[in-house]
Amino acid sequence: MAEQQEERDYNEFRVIQDLAGWRRTHHNNELTAADLGERVCLMGWVQFRRDHGGLIFLDLRDREGLTQVVFNPEGNPDVHERAHAIRAEYVVAVKGVVRMRPEGMANRNLVTGEVEIEVEEYKLLNTSETPPFPIEDRVEVGENLRLKYRFLDLRRPSLARNFIIRNKAAQAVRRYLDALGFLEIETPVLTKSTPEGARDFLVPSRVNQGEFYALPQSPQLFKQMLMVSGMDRYFQIVKCFRDEDLRADRQPEFTQIDIEMSFIDEAVIQDMAEGLVRTIFSETVGAALPDPFPRMTYADAMRDYGVDKPDLRFDLKLTEVTDIFTNSGFKVFAASELVKVLRVPGGGELSRKEIDDYTKFVEIYGSKGLAWIKIKEDGEWQSPIVKFFSEDEIAALRERTACQPGDILFFQAGAADIANAALGNLRCELAERFGLIDPKVFAPVWITDFPLLEYDADEKRYVARHHPFTSAKPDQMETLATDPGNALARAYDMVINGYEVGGGSIRIHTAEQQRIMFAALGIDADEAREKFGFLMDALKFGAPPHGGIAFGLDRLIMIITGSKSIRDVIAFPKTQKATCLMTEAPSEVPSKQLRELGIRLREKKEN
Amino acid sequence: MAEQQEERDYNEFRVIQDLAGWRRTHHNNELTAADLGERVCLMGWVQFRRDHGGLIFLDLRDREGLTQVVFNPEGNPDVHERAHAIRAEYVVAVKGVVRMRPEGMANRNLVTGEVEIEVEEYKLLNTSETPPFPIEDRVEVGENLRLKYRFLDLRRPSLARNFIIRNKAAQAVRRYLDALGFLEIETPVLTKSTPEGARDFLVPSRVNQGEFYALPQSPQLFKQMLMVSGMDRYFQIVKCFRDEDLRADRQPEFTQIDIEMSFIDEAVIQDMAEGLVRTIFSETVGAALPDPFPRMTYADAMRDYGVDKPDLRFDLKLTEVTDIFTNSGFKVFAASELVKVLRVPGGGELSRKEIDDYTKFVEIYGSKGLAWIKIKEDGEWQSPIVKFFSEDEIAALRERTACQPGDILFFQAGAADIANAALGNLRCELAERFGLIDPKVFAPVWITDFPLLEYDADEKRYVARHHPFTSAKPDQMETLATDPGNALARAYDMVINGYEVGGGSIRIHTAEQQRIMFAALGIDADEAREKFGFLMDALKFGAPPHGGIAFGLDRLIMIITGSKSIRDVIAFPKTQKATCLMTEAPSEVPSKQLRELGIRLREKKEN
Repeated sequence: MAEQQEERDYNEFRVIQDLAGWRRTHHNNELTAADLGERVCLMGWVQFRRDHGGLIFLDLRDREGLTQVVFNPEGNPDVHERAHAIRAEYVVAVKGVVRMRPEGMANRNLVTGEVEIEVEEYKLLNTSETPPFPIEDRVEVGENLRLKYRFLDLRRPSLARNFIIRNKAAQAVRRYLDALGFLEIETPVLTKSTPEGARDFLVPSRVNQGEFYALPQSPQLFKQMLMVSGMDRYFQIVKCFRDEDLRADRQPEFTQIDIEMSFIDEAVIQDMAEGLVRTIFSETVGAALPDPFPRMTYADAMRDYGVDKPDLRFDLKLTEVTDIFTNSGFKVFAASELVKVLRVPGGGELSRKEIDDYTKFVEIYGSKGLAWIKIKEDGEWQSPIVKFFSEDEIAALRERTACQPGDILFFQAGAADIANAALGNLRCELAERFGLIDPKVFAPVWITDFPLLEYDADEKRYVARHHPFTSAKPDQMETLATDPGNALARAYDMVINGYEVGGGSIRIHTAEQQRIMFAALGIDADEAREKFGFLMDALKFGAPPHGGIAFGLDRLIMIITGSKSIRDVIAFPKTQKATCLMTEAPSEVPSKQLRELGIRLREKKEN
Repeated sequence: MAEQQEERDYNEFRVIQDLAGWRRTHHNNELTAADLGERVCLMGWVQFRRDHGGLIFLDLRDREGLTQVVFNPEGNPDVHERAHAIRAEYVVAVKGVVRMRPEGMANRNLVTGEVEIEVEEYKLLNTSETPPFPIEDRVEVGENLRLKYRFLDLRRPSLARNFIIRNKAAQAVRRYLDALGFLEIETPVLTKSTPEGARDFLVPSRVNQGEFYALPQSPQLFKQMLMVSGMDRYFQIVKCFRDEDLRADRQPEFTQIDIEMSFIDEAVIQDMAEGLVRTIFSETVGAALPDPFPRMTYADAMRDYGVDKPDLRFDLKLTEVTDIFTNSGFKVFAASELVKVLRVPGGGELSRKEIDDYTKFVEIYGSKGLAWIKIKEDGEWQSPIVKFFSEDEIAALRERTACQPGDILFFQAGAADIANAALGNLRCELAERFGLIDPKVFAPVWITDFPLLEYDADEKRYVARHHPFTSAKPDQMETLATDPGNALARAYDMVINGYEVGGGSIRIHTAEQQRIMFAALGIDADEAREKFGFLMDALKFGAPPHGGIAFGLDRLIMIITGSKSIRDVIAFPKTQKATCLMTEAPSEVPSKQLRELGIRLREKKEN
């Protein structure tokens, strides 16, 4: 037969090198009873082979799904004979006819579960050794092995789905912004190192030896330059880089949806950005987000939730009780800058062990302890500390917290930043513990009215909370001059489910205001010129009012797909040691390459 | 007035910090007679101010166009008074009413040229110093000054247009590929250095001192891994990097449209790629490209055009005449591997000076001279060399070239590569000289049947012409083993107007064929494992048949926009010394940063 002849010709490769005109007609999630009798050509990987009653059944898998194919010795005996060689993860092409599965054999869990393909022709496209782990959604193998064989791990349907969703999100972003007249403009990857902010990745220059490019932490200054250029509306889905020590959901390279607009104010950007995020959620997973998003000032968020990125899927607000204890005999509370309480309805059921675990948990945030009061069903207060409280303090606490039998009250007292962080994060832990979180709910909120500056105790100066190009609110100029720590910024963050997914600001667009800002930061004219010379120039030549926002795409996709790790939404992620286990990057390079770049390695210190 | 009060409040900034609720209603290319009487709000830059008859006229510019606005002292005297301060490149916002320009004052060259806006309210959004060059399409200033002030240069309408077109092209690419089921998947920028190919940019690792990442020259291996992962159809518009010495139209970072497909052959990829390019040209500049594109083998292209990227906007084919002179008394020709002639109809008018210039031109390609024959109107042959030819040679030449009175014949003789390159490139020079090129024509062609390998005389071994993952044609396996230099590849280039705009291949998808290829390249199993270990692994676990293509987006946009330089289609390009004149990258960095990375600078050699 011609088919056999062809295979023999390429015998040295065992398999077909060339599709020889075979064309796939369908993906493996497409055929249903509506296609009965159709002649089709499918290709894919063998998920599973089963021999039964002389027939050979394969589950054929591709990116989209599974279809069952059947080799029948009474159909094409030669093809059936050859099918005996098929193993899991072999790559095959079949031609055949769509027919109903026999009575009672349908698989209701599959789109294609009612039908099967009776194979008439067959090509083996590739063989496979037994993979180091099975290609299934429930994998029990360690992440490092899966990262080494990332090209196999990505075959798992749950992981493949993340990239289908990520692509949908990216295309939805582009359609939405394109329709609004935004231009996607690429900014450089080889840029200038600026000592502000996080640590840069550096790239030694060969042509200009002794000099270095930096990979961009964001295209911030470039997008501002594009506004000065009159580009009006810019966006880019762009890689950014930070050489920081990696936490669980950080990567050295990450992707931003980066946006900037001219001739606008906060309201225009926020409307645009809300619409964008609503579009992403609706086009990827059909989720309907509120319109408009709720808004909350930074001060209110800190007061009620202890953090500037509150998870609003559940209630559990914090209550400040500092004033109740100002003159308390309980000196720990009386001496504290801030005393706050978190009431957990039904929290009385927590065991002593659980409370001990939460005490350890808040230590992460610098807390030195976790005081608590259980309100027993008989109304009695069980607590190691309540004996120090006066009757008035107990009464005031009862009224302020509206606590009920069965509740627990958790306290934090001390420096405001520690107390807030400890209780704000404990709040989320407790919401998990008490099942207050509906995984199908997405709760966005705008946080506004951020402080412009924050005091850096190490550097003994103010630093920009957002970045040094953020504008102060128009009515805050005097505050900026006289009381810089309290000046408010034209900055806004978008928070969803307790994650900051985006942040932005209205930028400074005049040279004078930029000088005032740099002065507040202790950056003098010479330093400003050296670090940001072109920005200072650009502001002199007709910069328009402008502002923007940037979203962390990786994190957005993590939230949308419900992934536990950011590595599950990045095709080829780095480990926490910043290595790629598949390609073994980074690696040593020949010394000739370093010589060309004019650099050498420092001797490693002896241990 | 409230307006004045507001300005006084922000007096320290001279200009409005806040749009205070003003919303732009139109861009400056929108208003026409159809909008008469409408109240509008426009914003933009002052292109030009003209005072005439007590009125003040501004041409207001934005990304999209120009609109004329008029300040009339009889309308709002205060606003008119303040308008006297306006200078070129100031940023202003106006509210007013659309009205017809007076009889005879219309500007037919502007979309908005029939109307003007009578200003009722006015805000100064920013001032501008006098720019270092005028913001006009005809600029007479040097490119370096324009690159330093790139944020001003990009305001020029012809340059802004390039980025509008580039965005259109990118979005058209995405829509087209998205509709065909391609997933845009991001591949890493911090990758592993591979010594094959061009020179890598390196990034020292801080966490893994002594090791380096490399910036990708292309995502080639990652996209192949995605095919092994079953992603089926991948694309990405992605930055790539090569640390090469820069030529006029090269940049250290450039952008590729990178595409890969599984379960396909050449025909499927070429159909898809043609459709993509037709879509780009039609959606950006409305150009209709042929369907299908013509196809030409590499051998035919070299024979007829001397290059593998022929410009088919004009004819001028080369003619081989080696055989005519095999036994010639003209030893220069008789001893040559290849003798080719280019007949230029009407070329007899070329002056001696022009011919001398062309002689210098072909020296770029290694040619040692440019022999020529002018066919005079009386039929006489005027030439320094014809006296060495026999009657038979002259007759054969006349017949082979079909030369006519008024023509010129240019000759190249010598090594085939030099003769072809010299005459192939001279052909394009002469087409320019004789006006044979219609700038509105786009002439695409597929070049196919490339050699798989080429001999590297320096390394004394064969190297991959495309890359070492390119599959040989199925019928070429024996040739590959016995006569590697003549084996043909499953590779294809797309050429438009003499530029290679895209290239791709069907990849090797079995471990055995990859081993055969590496063997032909003199790469043994150990070296293959060290350099491409994960690829060799991936091919063992069920790699599907796959192939792809990559387009140079910068060059495509250059062709579409008719730009002379690739720097005109890149927002922030590097110079030929790989520097950014605006940001002054690359730059020196503090030694602390280098210490953290475990590297130091080599001492510079004394001159």
